[in-house]
Amino acid sequence: MTVLANERIAYFNGNYVPEREVVVSFRDASFIGGDAGFDTTRTFNKRIFKLDEHLDRFYRTLRYLDIDPGLSKAEMKAISIEVFERNRHLLGPDEDYWLSQRVTRGQDKWAADGVATPTVIVECQALPYAKRAPLYRDGIEVIVPSIRRTPPDALSPQAKTHNYLNLIMADREVKAHNPKAWAVLLDAYGNLTEGLGSNLFLVSDGRLLTPRTHFVLPGISRQTVYELAEDLGIPLVEKDIDLFDAYNADEAFLTSTSLCICPVKSINGRKPADKGIPGPVTKRLLDAYSRLVDCDIAGQYLKHLKD
Amino acid sequence: MTVLANERIAYFNGNYVPEREVVVSFRDASFIGGDAGFDTTRTFNKRIFKLDEHLDRFYRTLRYLDIDPGLSKAEMKAISIEVFERNRHLLGPDEDYWLSQRVTRGQDKWAADGVATPTVIVECQALPYAKRAPLYRDGIEVIVPSIRRTPPDALSPQAKTHNYLNLIMADREVKAHNPKAWAVLLDAYGNLTEGLGSNLFLVSDGRLLTPRTHFVLPGISRQTVYELAEDLGIPLVEKDIDLFDAYNADEAFLTSTSLCICPVKSINGRKPADKGIPGPVTKRLLDAYSRLVDCDIAGQYLKHLKD
Amino acid sequence: MTVLANERIAYFNGNYVPEREVVVSFRDASFIGGDAGFDTTRTFNKRIFKLDEHLDRFYRTLRYLDIDPGLSKAEMKAISIEVFERNRHLLGPDEDYWLSQRVTRGQDKWAADGVATPTVIVECQALPYAKRAPLYRDGIEVIVPSIRRTPPDALSPQAKTHNYLNLIMADREVKAHNPKAWAVLLDAYGNLTEGLGSNLFLVSDGRLLTPRTHFVLPGISRQTVYELAEDLGIPLVEKDIDLFDAYNADEAFLTSTSLCICPVKSINGRKPADKGIPGPVTKRLLDAYSRLVDCDIAGQYLKHLKD
Amino acid sequence: MTVLANERIAYFNGNYVPEREVVVSFRDASFIGGDAGFDTTRTFNKRIFKLDEHLDRFYRTLRYLDIDPGLSKAEMKAISIEVFERNRHLLGPDEDYWLSQRVTRGQDKWAADGVATPTVIVECQALPYAKRAPLYRDGIEVIVPSIRRTPPDALSPQAKTHNYLNLIMADREVKAHNPKAWAVLLDAYGNLTEGLGSNLFLVSDGRLLTPRTHFVLPGISRQTVYELAEDLGIPLVEKDIDLFDAYNADEAFLTSTSLCICPVKSINGRKPADKGIPGPVTKRLLDAYSRLVDCDIAGQYLKHLKD
Amino acid sequence: MTVLANERIAYFNGNYVPEREVVVSFRDASFIGGDAGFDTTRTFNKRIFKLDEHLDRFYRTLRYLDIDPGLSKAEMKAISIEVFERNRHLLGPDEDYWLSQRVTRGQDKWAADGVATPTVIVECQALPYAKRAPLYRDGIEVIVPSIRRTPPDALSPQAKTHNYLNLIMADREVKAHNPKAWAVLLDAYGNLTEGLGSNLFLVSDGRLLTPRTHFVLPGISRQTVYELAEDLGIPLVEKDIDLFDAYNADEAFLTSTSLCICPVKSINGRKPADKGIPGPVTKRLLDAYSRLVDCDIAGQYLKHLKD
Amino acid sequence: MTVLANERIAYFNGNYVPEREVVVSFRDASFIGGDAGFDTTRTFNKRIFKLDEHLDRFYRTLRYLDIDPGLSKAEMKAISIEVFERNRHLLGPDEDYWLSQRVTRGQDKWAADGVATPTVIVECQALPYAKRAPLYRDGIEVIVPSIRRTPPDALSPQAKTHNYLNLIMADREVKAHNPKAWAVLLDAYGNLTEGLGSNLFLVSDGRLLTPRTHFVLPGISRQTVYELAEDLGIPLVEKDIDLFDAYNADEAFLTSTSLCICPVKSINGRKPADKGIPGPVTKRLLDAYSRLVDCDIAGQYLKHLKD
Repeated sequence: MTVLANERIAYFNGNYVPEREVVVSFRDASFIGGDAGFDTTRTFNKRIFKLDEHLDRFYRTLRYLDIDPGLSKAEMKAISIEVFERNRHLLGPDEDYWLSQRVTRGQDKWAADGVATPTVIVECQALPYAKRAPLYRDGIEVIVPSIRRTPPDALSPQAKTHNYLNLIMADREVKAHNPKAWAVLLDAYGNLTEGLGSNLFLVSDGRLLTPRTHFVLPGISRQTVYELAEDLGIPLVEKDIDLFDAYNADEAFLTSTSLCICPVKSINGRKPADKGIPGPVTKRLLDAYSRLVDCDIAGQYLKHLKD
Repeated sequence: MTVLANERIAYFNGNYVPEREVVVSFRDASFIGGDAGFDTTRTFNKRIFKLDEHLDRFYRTLRYLDIDPGLSKAEMKAISIEVFERNRHLLGPDEDYWLSQRVTRGQDKWAADGVATPTVIVECQALPYAKRAPLYRDGIEVIVPSIRRTPPDALSPQAKTHNYLNLIMADREVKAHNPKAWAVLLDAYGNLTEGLGSNLFLVSDGRLLTPRTHFVLPGISRQTVYELAEDLGIPLVEKDIDLFDAYNADEAFLTSTSLCICPVKSINGRKPADKGIPGPVTKRLLDAYSRLVDCDIAGQYLKHLKD
Repeated sequence: MTVLANERIAYFNGNYVPEREVVVSFRDASFIGGDAGFDTTRTFNKRIFKLDEHLDRFYRTLRYLDIDPGLSKAEMKAISIEVFERNRHLLGPDEDYWLSQRVTRGQDKWAADGVATPTVIVECQALPYAKRAPLYRDGIEVIVPSIRRTPPDALSPQAKTHNYLNLIMADREVKAHNPKAWAVLLDAYGNLTEGLGSNLFLVSDGRLLTPRTHFVLPGISRQTVYELAEDLGIPLVEKDIDLFDAYNADEAFLTSTSLCICPVKSINGRKPADKGIPGPVTKRLLDAYSRLVDCDIAGQYLKHLKD
Repeated sequence: MTVLANERIAYFNGNYVPEREVVVSFRDASFIGGDAGFDTTRTFNKRIFKLDEHLDRFYRTLRYLDIDPGLSKAEMKAISIEVFERNRHLLGPDEDYWLSQRVTRGQDKWAADGVATPTVIVECQALPYAKRAPLYRDGIEVIVPSIRRTPPDALSPQAKTHNYLNLIMADREVKAHNPKAWAVLLDAYGNLTEGLGSNLFLVSDGRLLTPRTHFVLPGISRQTVYELAEDLGIPLVEKDIDLFDAYNADEAFLTSTSLCICPVKSINGRKPADKGIPGPVTKRLLDAYSRLVDCDIAGQYLKHLKD
Repeated sequence: MTVLANERIAYFNGNYVPEREVVVSFRDASFIGGDAGFDTTRTFNKRIFKLDEHLDRFYRTLRYLDIDPGLSKAEMKAISIEVFERNRHLLGPDEDYWLSQRVTRGQDKWAADGVATPTVIVECQALPYAKRAPLYRDGIEVIVPSIRRTPPDALSPQAKTHNYLNLIMADREVKAHNPKAWAVLLDAYGNLTEGLGSNLFLVSDGRLLTPRTHFVLPGISRQTVYELAEDLGIPLVEKDIDLFDAYNADEAFLTSTSLCICPVKSINGRKPADKGIPGPVTKRLLDAYSRLVDCDIAGQYLKHLKD
Repeated sequence: MTVLANERIAYFNGNYVPEREVVVSFRDASFIGGDAGFDTTRTFNKRIFKLDEHLDRFYRTLRYLDIDPGLSKAEMKAISIEVFERNRHLLGPDEDYWLSQRVTRGQDKWAADGVATPTVIVECQALPYAKRAPLYRDGIEVIVPSIRRTPPDALSPQAKTHNYLNLIMADREVKAHNPKAWAVLLDAYGNLTEGLGSNLFLVSDGRLLTPRTHFVLPGISRQTVYELAEDLGIPLVEKDIDLFDAYNADEAFLTSTSLCICPVKSINGRKPADKGIPGPVTKRLLDAYSRLVDCDIAGQYLKHLKD
């Protein structure tokens, strides 16, 4: 197949192919059951961020799912770098990629005889700058849905899998109230956890508060905030956080691979006490994050703002 | 593309195509999130069973997920019949099909702009007679895993979606103890619920007991047992069932689309009091089921038994 | 004190006085702790509705709270009738009253010595026709908040007390998303319960579904629906109801003393299948309710609709 | 209105008036719904204790409730001091005041049109020395009721509101068994939390144990114990505490604004191992507390002991 | 060993021996782990009551525990009758026996090699008439402890085992408040369940209410009440019952093998509305019970009342 | 009674007697209710290990149960030493004892009049070297059963009582799947707790993880691991641990009095990443434990390995 000049290349079961060729049978375990693990890092000014940490987490997910990718972590790393390099030229000057690894349990194992071969995909995608740029200007409107985060004894939130309906249904619930809103879910005990791919932090009396690593994915960006907070001398506490804490926060922000740190405008319509977007502590952390990755994170987004 | 004589045909986004052409982008919502609904009926001696009831349930799932299939129920029914008819000739004399409808939310909606077009697939697959035949001879070995069924406030078990990891992880947990075992999960309150695609019934003091329709999929085969039990004058009670009830059952069986009614040999190694496989009440129901569908259900499986 | 001609009269600790004189010390148990029971009926065309049933429920609340009102049920009934009669002349032709009894534990008992004397108030208030009229035209927009209904082992939802913060906070949460929305809360187990003074019914496959009387106030209007449904031959089932059931309902409505039966437009933005407002079953019940009370319930509201 | 010489003065919606004039309409949100926040400090030898800390907590409660008092924290402080000064002369030589701020959501907002004006009251009350004096001599008899503390996802225990029925019902339950008993409730998970206005501490192996700040009000006296414990080099641990821990404590005490630190005689009839009242660690803390506030706390109470 | 004339005889591992010889090694599974099942019926005027029903329940317990008694149900019945006959002569004219079967897993199986032989004991004991007589005169004072009934997913309350600490600790908790009190525990969800060997019934609006058979032992006396209620035309409902229901009951009573039906005086000090002991419905049932067993149940107890 | 030369001696209610004389009435509270506390230490090369720590824990259990043993801790210590000394000569050169104290509430207190006298037994038993030796060679196969650990509000897992059915039923459940398996139970919230007499540790990224002391017995061997880990500079964290953590552990081991530290081979069939038995961190701790007790712990077991 001819590769078009403006076409992204992905790794697919041993080959580097144009993305349009990365198609899977509808009998693949991930298509019919979401039975797969994945992970996603991003680049900053064309440099891949914490790829080792992401792959460590990815392999923990796979081990939890008991899926053998058939590739060592070193091989997966080399493939990831190769995929990025093959697509680098498609990026504009103020653009970066999401870079994802996905491994499924392979073709419909439980109906068929024999052993499935995992499906392995490594792919990249441009970050949605224009769409998310307003979030850096205005802050994210967080709504807490009625849907609760799946409990660990049903499926561990520490694993990053293709079973996303709990988070999708939660996000759709809040977007029905407000199309701009993002969901952050409570756990079974009424504590705030996480959103669809994002972790929550509050700033309260000069301290950072964030949910315990039990009902949430241990985000790499979240971990980066731990490190930046330590460097900046900002105390950070993992604890159970409820709506009382959220409504009394001085500032709040979400972290995710793509956003890094993005200020929260409101939680259930309640605005943090420090009404600046971002608040002063959030700004210190975001600035430090930008220095760490040598990229003006918010600036990069805001350049794509459509007035 | 040429259709091979021995190749199954499926409906795929408006067309009838060979199955090998039913391939989806890895960015499809079902591949990356299990974000889809589905339903599955089967045929008996080449007649489709309760297609309307299955489609009613299918559209309830879609409505819960807020996915518009772009097809009316009547259209989906016509397509389902057409798919079956196009594949009928591939069946041997003692064979029947699973017949499934699947609708996904379409391509990666939450990262992209615009609105996704749902992916629609209707397909059939030969029932795994040889693999399951021993179950009718020996009964199913049920093990109750430590994993609990996802609670309704996280994702409703009444919906039949492509998010199967909770049930898959449970099934893998028990198969690690005993490769022949099937999982039946407890709910958050310690009551027995369902397995991967199967409902549980106990026979106790001449009554049928089955979990309430709240933590379980309302199975069509389960519903058929309700009707048969009424015809046969066997009382049936929906109630919370725990391990005490299970260990004291006189008989037990699972129902599913493919199995209809299949006797349980043991639950956590405990054998029902009536040790016949099937027990007398189970046999009456299975016989009545066979009469209803005009097909010797167990007999069809047992013909494929490999000594 | 002179009673003005247009001034409502209330019963207050043994006397009939103008409402402006019904003032309580800030040390009253209800002011500082919400430590009181109450009940509310309404009139239809100037006739009091089911006063005995309301007073029975009121005295169950008081007995739960262990508050002795110092008045027999018969005395409370006589006072209630008297209060209504003294205020009847203030009603316009298309107006009716809420009529409420309230008994508090009296003055700050736990800090002071001695025994408190209960505060007893019986009062009426014009129904908010104009404000609620659009609900009969458009239906109520129900949103399910993240806040859960107080569980019975903390404080029984069957008692009608002056501790309303759980329901108020829930209602404020959803009104922050949509000022017209009404909250219907989940219980600790993820089942739908009730709203601030309202009970929920779904219509599904020709049956009425409503939550079990355990996490909800046993509404008198709800009870009236039971009676009307029996008269009309509409099956009614008390059961655990989750969001799957709600999103798949054919119709939905709320009941309350003032509303009697008011159609629901949407639940979390999802519209019932029968999109008429009211749906056909709701309409049959509402019509029967109107006949029972000899008052065009919706019509009375709609007369007050502004432009 | 003439102010009598022996009459207390309170602040009420902008004015300083005799307490008997602080009367509110029965339609006030706090009367009919307990819809209000409050806080209470006390004086020691006529000096107000930690007024800033109490007002900080008060404003956190108001922010959670989304009630705007219409007064800045500085204004509230000035009013509080003024109220105390206007009542100081009424205190005897061994007496001090409770000093409370209360803000309600105002008049029945949800039935009426328009916006409610909050009701603001600042008032003081003599401490109940005679009634509580025996507690310092004998210790408090704690009973754990069957009623559980309202969970945070129904209403946050961190907020100090006028919804007191959960705690009142618990306290009445234990007083029905023993009129001298005080309730300390379990949370939904079986851990000890708090009583009606009091926090619990255990002394165990030389360490102080107290429940985590999640199911309890973060008491200012509790916080003071933290500071005193640090000064005295007594380790303090926040953790989940169950009946096993309570029955095995060496000492136990309650803290509250009025009591500061008061020894516990027994929990469910079980006496701490160190049977002195107070135990040695409790005594060290109580002595340190007395030094901090320059007032013999227990001594002041015991002076009022009626033989 | 010589049998004394006034000595009770018991069955012990195959022999009928004087009770003083029924001694077990401290390594018996029941001594070191409570690892045993049992059941207890009683006699009425020297006739054994519902022995078959008790043995059916006993064998369900044993099957749950997976203990094989080494005796058929018919053998156990014959032994039970024999034990009673051998001790019949020791009864006074107004006396009857408890008659119990106990089977343990035998000697310390999990530390030792090989297979344990179960310990089998059938024994009788005079009913404690004098001690319990006041209960028929005064009613039972029920207190609801803070301790919750063990949930079914930890150990099924439907099994009657020698693991009694949950109920013993609950009973001791309430007896510390009031030595005459009996405990009735809540389950994990705040519903009333059962006491130490007793089931609870409420009479409310002419109906009998009793907890669902899930968190409680299915009492044979409870079952007898079901039958008597049906005979007498008294409606009976199994449902979740909370403190609101209990405090609003018209009457309440406990059932147990020895008590049959015994009126409740109060629940947490709250007296039922019908203050007679027994109340009218309770009396009808107790009279019918007495007729059924041809024995004046309460009368027999009251004859032993001291002074 | 003559004492045979090869017969063990035990302390029984004031006397030192041959074990065969330590027989209890079947009416003893521990036989009919498991109503007793106990504790067990062991010897290493004939030296008793941490007897004081074990007796401290024993007396906490008794205090929780409210059983007065009638002996001071010093007396119990002297008796324990005496029992060991009287049986020391029966040990082979590579053998050691379990040494246990047991106190029951005495004879059937709740049916009889008067006060029970506790039954006191101190006894020893040879460690089951041959049976457990393979565990040190192969590692323990842990299976997580469906049964959940009894929650603290039903009966505190911190107390070591004779109510063992929850753990026995769990152990039997997993042994039905695999006769060599040991159960480690989840708590009510889906976190791993403990097994029948054993605590769980994971090694993850060089840190030790173990469940919080709340749903588990605070093991003395577990405490010893804390001390050894501190000495060796291995970080240790108490936290909620779920299956994700377990499946991703680098190593895992159980601790118990007899095993001290024994490597885990697999959890639900999943093998730790460091596949050596024992893993390197486990080995360091086990070696340090051996040095502490001056006894080659694993070596002593492995000497008894058959074939």
